[in-house]
Amino acid sequence: MQQTRLDTDRIRAARRLIDPVFLDTPLYRCEALEPELGCAVSVKLETANPVRSFKGRGTEVVTSLLPGDGPRAVVCASAGNLGQALAWSGRGRGIEVTVVASRSATAAKLERIRALGARLDLVDGDHEAARERAAAIARRDGVRLVEDSLDIETCEGAATIGLELAESAAPFDTVLIALGGGALATGVGHVLKSLAPEVDVVCVQPLGAPAMTLSWRGRRVVTTGPTDTIADGVAGRCPIPAVLDDLLLVADDAVLVREASIVAGMRLLLDHAGLVVEPSAALGVAAVLEDRERFAGRHVVTVVCGGNVDMDAHRRWTGAAAGHGS
Amino acid sequence: MQQTRLDTDRIRAARRLIDPVFLDTPLYRCEALEPELGCAVSVKLETANPVRSFKGRGTEVVTSLLPGDGPRAVVCASAGNLGQALAWSGRGRGIEVTVVASRSATAAKLERIRALGARLDLVDGDHEAARERAAAIARRDGVRLVEDSLDIETCEGAATIGLELAESAAPFDTVLIALGGGALATGVGHVLKSLAPEVDVVCVQPLGAPAMTLSWRGRRVVTTGPTDTIADGVAGRCPIPAVLDDLLLVADDAVLVREASIVAGMRLLLDHAGLVVEPSAALGVAAVLEDRERFAGRHVVTVVCGGNVDMDAHRRWTGAAAGHGS
Repeated sequence: MQQTRLDTDRIRAARRLIDPVFLDTPLYRCEALEPELGCAVSVKLETANPVRSFKGRGTEVVTSLLPGDGPRAVVCASAGNLGQALAWSGRGRGIEVTVVASRSATAAKLERIRALGARLDLVDGDHEAARERAAAIARRDGVRLVEDSLDIETCEGAATIGLELAESAAPFDTVLIALGGGALATGVGHVLKSLAPEVDVVCVQPLGAPAMTLSWRGRRVVTTGPTDTIADGVAGRCPIPAVLDDLLLVADDAVLVREASIVAGMRLLLDHAGLVVEPSAALGVAAVLEDRERFAGRHVVTVVCGGNVDMDAHRRWTGAAAGHGS
Repeated sequence: MQQTRLDTDRIRAARRLIDPVFLDTPLYRCEALEPELGCAVSVKLETANPVRSFKGRGTEVVTSLLPGDGPRAVVCASAGNLGQALAWSGRGRGIEVTVVASRSATAAKLERIRALGARLDLVDGDHEAARERAAAIARRDGVRLVEDSLDIETCEGAATIGLELAESAAPFDTVLIALGGGALATGVGHVLKSLAPEVDVVCVQPLGAPAMTLSWRGRRVVTTGPTDTIADGVAGRCPIPAVLDDLLLVADDAVLVREASIVAGMRLLLDHAGLVVEPSAALGVAAVLEDRERFAGRHVVTVVCGGNVDMDAHRRWTGAAAGHGS
């Protein structure tokens, strides 16, 4: 295939920079989900670690590679998971971390960022406003801007999930990956296309935040108006051209799902797999729910990428009051 | 120390008999739990596998060692987790599995046992009645009776958790272990007393099912009347003498906790760690809640041993309606 920006040898090397607490995460069949989904389903679980998302893989690489002779400070924009992970990785290495987030970000995520000792800078507006502000802080203070999905460390950190999938004993047909900025999708996709090219790489995004999917379909950057989704972790409007180029090389498909399907996915994962997941982590299950025929008889792996969710909202979305689960 | 029935070399060998999907489970700090618990808390998570409890470690050993020339059939009594794990391990090896359970066992567990293809034999009465019935079936049919905690494979399978704890990078002071029949406690306790004797091994049982704890305290088998606890996984009345002997050698303490503390523990694990656990798996957190002073400033590991729970009950126990979580 044409070359992405990622490098499989460098991804293997990245594993050695990452605290083992983020590596070799559970990968297992969830048969209890299968009657409802009509296919074999395995979960790659990225929530059972100190920051409850896969983002620690990338921030461990970023902070490990920060030059020792430069300023020991970083800044990022985040919907919450990258910020939490960067705060965790930075704390362990004596790096000062500033996280810029939207004032409307998930409260549970903001609380953990603060608790981990990062400076939290809240902006009015959405994630794109936070990205602008983070860039301004980086210029002003001369510190490293960590740009999710653009910075190769964030992609190659996430790509270590792909190594673990490629080396798994049980064969599978399809991997379902939440698509936001693209670090996870290009990372996992790159490795699978290199090491297990027969696996279908299917990216999933909410209909209410479709920028990257529309860009992938149109083979050019498409920006959108305001997003409208509960899947806060993937709600961007302005795809990064270099990331889109990579995604075009590694994704076999990109699909959009409805909010109701995301909620149904969260509920299924709770009721039949005992997993508390954030909306972005239910996108894969949502995609199967919306197109059972497509996946019938196949073995899909869904990457459960994060579990940072406001529990009151989670209870509302998944509660028995919704007429399910009893 | 005096010798238990367990053997550390055999436990190391057991690891090679167990499907890797049950091994090297997540072990990580849950800082979000710590303000409420007043100590450093790590979780050893045994729920992210195909049977959602640690019991697969033991049943993999049992079924691997079943003589090839004898009947390929086993029977066990189970509150649900052992039965589910035995059904899973047996299915993969062409072994016919019969599980005897109380009619009042957790519905989610019984459903999974059936789904995994085991024959399910329901009895009136409690777990002790199921044990008698399973023994009778074994005699009648001439098949292997798998007796949880008595059969050394169940203890040594569970003991592989101890190996993983002993080899963990971060030092800890105390391990909190749910105490039922004793396989988990004697298994983990044996390994830690051999390889990390400085770690306090604290067993936790519900006040409503205190037989093994009373036996440990009295240094002789104490049986009790009917149990009264939501922690179905540890609700026995008749401790096994050989298991008690082992427990006396490896446990530093055995404590009893109230039902309200178990519920509070489940709620904390849900709200602050995003974990859906069955009541037995919240016993460790319950023990800290009941005696914060004892654990203050220490680093405790709690083994989250299972996640098979009726979700309606779980919602009732952990719901916002209980005045928590908002």
